[in-house]
Parts: sequence; structure tokens; C-alpha cells
Amino acid sequence: MSQTAFRTHHATEVTEALVGQKVTLAGWVDRRRDHGGVAFIDLRDNTGLVQIVIYDEEVARPLRSEFVIQVTGEVRLRPEGNENDHLATGRIEVVVEDLKVLAKADALPFQVSTALENESENKLPGEDVRLKYRYLDLRRPSMQRNLKLRSDMTRAARHALEEMDFTEVETPTFIKSTPEGARDFVVPARLVPGSWYALPQSPQLLKQLLMVSGVERYYQLARCYRDEDFRADRQPEFTQLDMEMAFVDQEDVMAMAEKVIAAIWKAAGYEVQLPLPRISWQDAMDKYGSDKPDLRFGNPLVDLTEYFRNTPFRVFQAPYVGAVVYSGAADLPRRQFDAWQDWARQRGAKGLAYVQFEADGTLKGPVAKNLSEEERNGLMEATGAKPGDAVFFAAGHKESSQLLLGAVRVEIADRQGLLKPDDFAFTWVVDFPLFKPTDDPDDDDVAVGHSKWTSMHHPFTMPSADWIDRFDKDPEHAMSDSYDIVCNGEEMGGGSVRIHRDDIQDRVLNVLGIDPEEAKEKFGFLLDAFKFGAPPHAGIALGWDRTVSILAGADSIRDVIAFPKAGGGRDPLTGAPAPISDEQRAETGVDYDPEEDEQH
Amino acid sequence: MSQTAFRTHHATEVTEALVGQKVTLAGWVDRRRDHGGVAFIDLRDNTGLVQIVIYDEEVARPLRSEFVIQVTGEVRLRPEGNENDHLATGRIEVVVEDLKVLAKADALPFQVSTALENESENKLPGEDVRLKYRYLDLRRPSMQRNLKLRSDMTRAARHALEEMDFTEVETPTFIKSTPEGARDFVVPARLVPGSWYALPQSPQLLKQLLMVSGVERYYQLARCYRDEDFRADRQPEFTQLDMEMAFVDQEDVMAMAEKVIAAIWKAAGYEVQLPLPRISWQDAMDKYGSDKPDLRFGNPLVDLTEYFRNTPFRVFQAPYVGAVVYSGAADLPRRQFDAWQDWARQRGAKGLAYVQFEADGTLKGPVAKNLSEEERNGLMEATGAKPGDAVFFAAGHKESSQLLLGAVRVEIADRQGLLKPDDFAFTWVVDFPLFKPTDDPDDDDVAVGHSKWTSMHHPFTMPSADWIDRFDKDPEHAMSDSYDIVCNGEEMGGGSVRIHRDDIQDRVLNVLGIDPEEAKEKFGFLLDAFKFGAPPHAGIALGWDRTVSILAGADSIRDVIAFPKAGGGRDPLTGAPAPISDEQRAETGVDYDPEEDEQH
Repeated sequence: MSQTAFRTHHATEVTEALVGQKVTLAGWVDRRRDHGGVAFIDLRDNTGLVQIVIYDEEVARPLRSEFVIQVTGEVRLRPEGNENDHLATGRIEVVVEDLKVLAKADALPFQVSTALENESENKLPGEDVRLKYRYLDLRRPSMQRNLKLRSDMTRAARHALEEMDFTEVETPTFIKSTPEGARDFVVPARLVPGSWYALPQSPQLLKQLLMVSGVERYYQLARCYRDEDFRADRQPEFTQLDMEMAFVDQEDVMAMAEKVIAAIWKAAGYEVQLPLPRISWQDAMDKYGSDKPDLRFGNPLVDLTEYFRNTPFRVFQAPYVGAVVYSGAADLPRRQFDAWQDWARQRGAKGLAYVQFEADGTLKGPVAKNLSEEERNGLMEATGAKPGDAVFFAAGHKESSQLLLGAVRVEIADRQGLLKPDDFAFTWVVDFPLFKPTDDPDDDDVAVGHSKWTSMHHPFTMPSADWIDRFDKDPEHAMSDSYDIVCNGEEMGGGSVRIHRDDIQDRVLNVLGIDPEEAKEKFGFLLDAFKFGAPPHAGIALGWDRTVSILAGADSIRDVIAFPKAGGGRDPLTGAPAPISDEQRAETGVDYDPEEDEQH
Repeated sequence: MSQTAFRTHHATEVTEALVGQKVTLAGWVDRRRDHGGVAFIDLRDNTGLVQIVIYDEEVARPLRSEFVIQVTGEVRLRPEGNENDHLATGRIEVVVEDLKVLAKADALPFQVSTALENESENKLPGEDVRLKYRYLDLRRPSMQRNLKLRSDMTRAARHALEEMDFTEVETPTFIKSTPEGARDFVVPARLVPGSWYALPQSPQLLKQLLMVSGVERYYQLARCYRDEDFRADRQPEFTQLDMEMAFVDQEDVMAMAEKVIAAIWKAAGYEVQLPLPRISWQDAMDKYGSDKPDLRFGNPLVDLTEYFRNTPFRVFQAPYVGAVVYSGAADLPRRQFDAWQDWARQRGAKGLAYVQFEADGTLKGPVAKNLSEEERNGLMEATGAKPGDAVFFAAGHKESSQLLLGAVRVEIADRQGLLKPDDFAFTWVVDFPLFKPTDDPDDDDVAVGHSKWTSMHHPFTMPSADWIDRFDKDPEHAMSDSYDIVCNGEEMGGGSVRIHRDDIQDRVLNVLGIDPEEAKEKFGFLLDAFKFGAPPHAGIALGWDRTVSILAGADSIRDVIAFPKAGGGRDPLTGAPAPISDEQRAETGVDYDPEEDEQH
């Protein structure tokens, strides 16, 4: 498929088999070296590099980095000793007979050449400059690889879903505002002045309607929108691979999703062993201090609550005491342990208690002296530490202490070089509670409803079978049929069995403190649909930007999105968002006054 | 892939091979007949129907249309004489041993059963009711077929593009407002109060930036947004299959697109002969009175301008006189010809002159007496009519007269039953002018720019090679490298070679009356990108809703969209668009007052 009006071959198709033949190539001047009046140019296209040689100084003179050129010439073997084994085309070169400059390039704000990129990424400018000249940034081979990988992954996922008889359905972007935990982006509807569309936070309700519509297996690579404050690695718009099935249970969906995940990873050359491991939400919290545990390494949390039941140490007289071992860290300098205190305080903790076991087993560190002799003596065994290890403790409210230790565990692994980006540890997290308290300090989302309970996943999640009759009597302990898929400590996605009966949905909304009138106003259409024969259904969605960034080993999802937004939702490239004209504003109808309208 | 927690087989998998075996099925009660205390139920799932038999009256009693049930029973041959050859499963039935009601259904607002649909579509309620209960409307087999066909077509297009090494890239929905001929939908950006994003009318500039980024073959099934007044068959959001290639010319893109189109049609069982025919824009206007000619039938327009050069008939003393033959229509009653006058007036014409040739060749009709004898005598030969035919005329401004005759031509063919929905006549329309006058009465779009010229396609279209140096000196005659693909008189899509040099782009914007400052403000980022080595590139986009509706033989694009909007952009299902709360409004920042902000 290489032959077009501008070329006979792509760069890397020029092999030794073509020696003596004439080829026409087109691409960018990646790098130029001059040697005794002869110009050697690496010509770059989207397959890679090939060396072209220009003997005519007049022809070569104007060529600078990133000029777009078309060349015709004969392929020959490079002179002995000049081969480049790092390059697919390293044994040949093309002697240019005819050269055409298709487009010139001004001096670049930063270099994008393949060679430079391989030497060091440090020459890259700051993110705003990269985004302002995104079309240059994307020319770098590592960014080209990311875009290609994303496309390959999408293709692999689609093919897997097609084999399982899924129908791709596009759902609308202009919907009604529904409560899914975050703020909606809204769009004024000019034709109904004073009214607005909302952009979907996910196609959740629409895909459930598709199930009620008799589409038994739906998927879509869906664009979703959440108007949240920009944190860490969020974008105002993001993509999810959205799937839903009728007449299935949790096991059916998990088996389907595993096939999709295996297909995606296979597209990048990795074999994923199925079935994937599972861990209950409670175990994940207890053992790894996280609802998205990183299982590339072990070192689980140790629960010492029982061990310290009668401790004289006030700090450990708490509902929960836990620990995590930092192997081989006993001899780290004091300032490093001080730095850990700062690290913990930045995460909202008061500090991070620790002890050290010296090589001879002697216990030291600030906590040691506060413990009873019995506690000191048994501590190595109780924590599983060895001589030469340090141990961090957290004590207090169970969940927040576990989350702190979970973060410590990952931070230790990072310092020990255990977080290898091409080592993929998947796990399902299952057996989630149906509800969580609205005052959960770990909560990312805005609570849905007005009671002390909000949904752990979302209000459409089915209680597990043995809780269907009584979840509203004991919301604290009610469990749900839901599941998250986690890889390397990141939540790739999640899903649940959905409620398909209006009586159960009504009761869940009641627990959430959403009164019937409000429910009817917000998603009465879904409750109505359930009155006309809704099949049992369940689904899952993968956060696609996140999933791609995990497999790409990217530092940020911005590196796997062609045109991401910078902080605050700004686009340094186009200048969006921007003011609109008065005329545009008038047309949107946002200033529509119904009373004024009545007077006319 | 049929086996799930709820079923062992899909309905149509229950074949004679399974006779004597036990199966578990799940689906909807499509239709029920009772016969001597025995209930015969057509069970429907997304594969089709299978008959189940319930002997237990108690069990069968509550079952009504659209109940969702799960049944287990033995497969047996139907008793002789009870077979139904119209059904894939018509030779067997399943004798129910166990039945579970998974969900009940209230009385339906309209019937959706397969059998009723086949009898007549007339039982369908109005569109607002269909859309309000879209989840019922979509259960109808014809709608399920449309959704499935759309998915199959998308899959076929993707596979074809993948084979041609295209990379799927997602472009952002939140962009900057750019002038592409229609009104933008805009979204307030909360984090930059007073600023707005625009939703893309197409990814045109973004895909051009991808070419500058070194992505040589891009595609995307892209959601696009145009805030236009609702006419005929438009939606505020629509989908296009968007493609762009670097280092190619017009021929490369057309060859690629033909492969995609052939693959799509093949997915529906049709072989498309390649290459597709081509017609120049001028020929299409002259012969068919349309820039999207329907070539399922012939009957071209006849240019009689020369013939009537010295006519005594005032009406025909015009810059253009043309005709179209209505074969066999000479004997139609007068009131039908009167109705044609109304039809023409509704289209903005003054009327529609006509003559009739009686079986013996005698000329009659209101125009006849106004012509010279010579004109009367030669008219049959000049128009190509035969005895028994009628001929319609239009005279006046060339283009509007041709458009009227083009519409007459199609209307005649429709009355003659020549517009067969499963007969597909493709053509490329090529050799378009680069510009058109801003006062073009046929213009759908808002003009771009402030001069008397606007772009025929869009401002980024490349002048054809022999016009590059002089298009701005003679905008009236300048030609472009652009192409539309037309099927059955509908524009499926179009594209062009793009400008990749800022000097040419500047000159085009100048002709359009867009001054440099305005250009810089609106798409300076593209002009900037062209300064850093932009490859020659070209592309095409297919209007996906339209393309699917053509292949599906649907009356409206709404029949191939899962959840379309009704007139005025309303969604009768969810009630969107709707007012937002004061709190939501405050958060959007639309009422932000910069002066007030300064005071704080």
C-alpha cells in the first residue's frame, strides 16, 4: 500500500533486495550530515528512516531539518564500514538523482529528530510548548508509536468484540443532565431558548436502554465528558471502551472482558494468562491498602491491631494498627526517614511511625522505646521483617490507615525499582459493598443523593442475590454484583450487573435519598423503560486513555492522546477555550428571558 | 457465543439437530396464541423467533406481550401440518418444562411484534411516540436490522482501512470555534470563566494537523456538530467516516475510498463494480440538473437554448432553456399537469411549461401555441420525445433552471417506479469550481468570508494544478482538486486535495475576504503548522448516517440512528434539552463579568 502519487516505497521498504533499482521516496529531513561536499540525509516517514546521499552541493544546500522532500534515486549498498546495524535500512542508501522540496520548514522551536530522541528525552521543552507545537511533538517516533499502539489496541478490542457478536452502536452526545457523580458540561440549545443539553459522563443510561431495546450485546468507543477540576492526569473529555450484555451474569461479563484484554495485550506482543486472578475488595484493602492493588510485587500489609491490643503506646491504642516492611532499609540515613514523614503529611497523615531492625536484630527507631518489651521482642516475627529491614506503621481509622500503608507499600516498591512498566499484573477486584458513606474521605466523586449513603459504583448497580430482599434494611453491609479490573495499581475499568426492575431501582434510589419526584425528573425514562420488559443485563467499561497509557508505559495519559488539553482545560495549540462574539452569544439563547418573551 | 448464565441457545440456533435435547432459552414474548388450553408463544431474541409450547394453563396465564422470560424444555418436531416454512425454526418447537418470568411488561403503547411488523408498518404511531418509547420502537425487527447493518458497515469500512494501513486517531470534541460554514455549538468552560469551547463541525483542521504531525493515513468515525435550523432530515449531531492521507493526490484518495465503499456494500451482500464512474460537476448540472445526479435511470436534460434562440415565445427568450421528457405521460389528465405547477411553485419556480405529443404526433399543451411552426415541427426530434410523451420545460437563469429540471427528472422517475432502493448507482462528481458566488440561491451553508466569493467545498481546498498561480486573478473560473461521491442522487461524501502551503492558503483566504488578522485569530494554528514542513495531503469524509440510510433503504436517517432527535432538537425520550439549575448555571461561568471580577 506504499505506492502513491508521491512515492514508490516507504523508507523501511528500501531493502537490499532493491539494490540497483530506482525508487522514489517522500518524507521529512530527519538529520543531515555533510562530509566532503556530500550530504547524507536521514529521510523519515512514518515507517522509519532511510539514508539518502546527495552529491550535488547546490541541490543539498537549502535542505534543513523537517523540510518535506521527494527524492528519486538508485538504491546501493553502503560502502563497507558505513553500515548502521541499528537501522532496518542500515545496509543501503539511496543516491539522489532528482530532488523536489515539497514544503519548507522554519527553524524549529525544538528538535524532533529520531536520533536526538533516542539520545535523551531531556531536550524536550515544557508541556505547554509541546502542546502549542503538538504537530511537531507528534512527529517524534515515541509519540508516533503511542498513536499507533492506541490504534492497534482499539482494533484488537474491536475484533475480539466482533467475534463475540457485539453490535457497535453510537449513542448521542446531546443528552439530558443525569446524576453520575460529577459535574456535567452543558450546551445551550438555541432552538429551545433557555434550555441546555448535557454531554454524557458515560453512556450508562443509554446502553441500559439499548438492552431494553433488545440489542443483546453492545459496544462503543465512547467519548465521555466530566467537568471536574483538573487534577493529576485528568482530561475534560476522555474515551471509554463501553460494553453491555443482556441475559448474562457477572461471570459472563468478566469472561468476555478477559478475552478483550488478552486480545489488546496480544496486539502489543504480550500473552496474558486467563483467567485473571481475583481479590475481594475487603482483601485488597486489608492486604494492599488499596481498592486497586499493584500486584507486580508482594510485600502485603500486616494487620497488628490484635498484636497491639494491650499496648502502652498511646498512638497504637487505635481501632486499627497496620505495618508494611521496607526490606533492607534499616541503615538508611535519618534524613530519609524524615523525608518519609513529609511525604506522609503531604498525604494528610500526621506522620509515619517506623522502627528499624539492625543486622544483629536490635530494634531501634523512635517508636521502639514506646513499646512494651514483649511487643519489641515479638515484632520481627509479627511483621515478617528480617534483620536489616525497616517497618512503617499506621494506626487509627482503619480505612485511612490502610490507604496510607498501601501508598507506602507502592512508594517502597518504586524506590526498589519494582514498578517495571512492561510487567503487567492484572487483578479483578470483586465483592464490593453496594453503598459507602457520603463522608468517605477517599471519595473522588460528588455523592449522588441526599442521604448518608451513596453508591459505591453508581445508582444502577444490582445488589448481590442474597441482598436483594434486604439491602435497604442494612445498607452498611449490603454487597453488590460489581467488579473492577486493575492493572499495575491502576483502575483500568469496572462494571456491574445492573438493576433491570423498577421496584429494585426505586428502593436503591430511596436509600440514596433521591425522592420519587426527583428520580422521575432525572431518569424517569429509564424507570419507565423498566416497565416494558427489561432483560437482566450487565456490563463493563474500560477507561481507554488509561488502558493505553498502561500498555504504552506512558507517564501521562496526555502522551497517548493526539490533542490533549493542558491544565485548566486550555489548548495551547488553538487557544481554546475562547470568548465568543456577542452575536454568537445571542444566538445560543443563554440570555433568554421567558418573561420578556411573554410580553411580545 | 450464545451460552450465558440465562440460556444455552439463541432462538434460531434451535434446529432439527437438537430434537430430543433439552435447551434453555431467554427472550421476549413476541406473540401468543391459545388453542385448546395450550399456549403457543413466539419467543423472540435478537436472532429471531422460536415457538415454545406451554401445556400448563396456570403457568401460561400471566404471560403477555413483551414479558421477558426464561424457559427450559425439550426440542421436538412440530406435528405434521403445523410447520411454518417462513421461519428458520419453523419445523420445531420447544415444550416448556420450566418457565421463569424475568421481567413483566405493562400494556404497550404500540405493538412491536415481528408478525405485526411484517403485516404492515402503518400501525406505527407518530414519530414523537416512537421516539418517546424508542426502546420499544428499536425492538421491531426492521429497526434491529438497521442497527445491525450499521454496525456491519462500520466494521467493513474499518477492516478495509486497516488493510490499507490507516491509523485510527481520536480528535478532540472541545475545540476552538472555526468557520466552516454553519453555526457552532458552544460549551461554556467553567475553569476559564467567560470562555467557551466549540464542538467541531468536522475534524477538518485537526486531521490536517495530523498530516503535519506525520500520521500519514488517518481515519476516524467522527461525531460532528452543526447548530442549524432543523430541515428535512438533519440532526444536530451526526457521524462521518473521516479519512485523510499524506503524500497522495486525488486519484490515490478516490481509489482508496472506492475500496472502502465496495467493502461496505459487500458487507450487505452487494458487489460494486470498480472503478466507479465519474462525471464532471458541469456535466452533472447540464445533464442531470444536479450536483448529485441520480444515475439509477437515464432521461437526461435536453439543452434547448440554441433551439429556441429566435423563438417568438417570450418566456423562452432566456439565457437558458432546457427540457426533460416524461415518457408516456401525454394522456395524463389535466389536473395532474396542474398539480405539477403547484409542485414547481413550492420549489420557488413560477411554474412548469409543458407540451404533450399525442399518439399521432400532434403537439398540444399550453406552450404549443406560443411556438413558431418550425419550432413545433422540430420539437419531437430536438427533445428526443416520442409520440405519447410529455415534455417539461424550464427557462431563465441557467443554474436554477437546470436544478428545477433535475428535480422534475427525479420526480418523474419516482412516479414511474424507477427509484428502486436496492439498486445502487454510484458516481464521482469531479472538476468542481474552487469558488462560488456568495449569493448562490442553491447554497445550503452560510458563506465563509466577506467577499462575493465563498468556497465551493471549504477554504482549505487546493486549486487544481493549472490554477495554482492564477486562481485569485479569475476566481469565477478557477477549478479545484475536489470530488464528491454520490449514490442514488444523494451525496454520500466528498473531499479534496488540501492546501499544505501557507502562501497558497493566504491567497485563498484573501479571495474569500478574510483578512490576515481574522485568519490568524481563527486558524492561525494551521497556518503556523504549515511553516514547519507540511506534506501534500488529501482526504475524504463519508456522511455516515446518510450512507447507512442509503444502503438500508431507510426513509430517514432517523431510522438508522439509535436515539435521534425529533424536530427542533428535542428528545421525546429523555426530555432533553431542559433548563438547568441556578447552581449549574452559576458554575458554567456564562454570567461571568470580568469587570466585577476585577473589583474583588
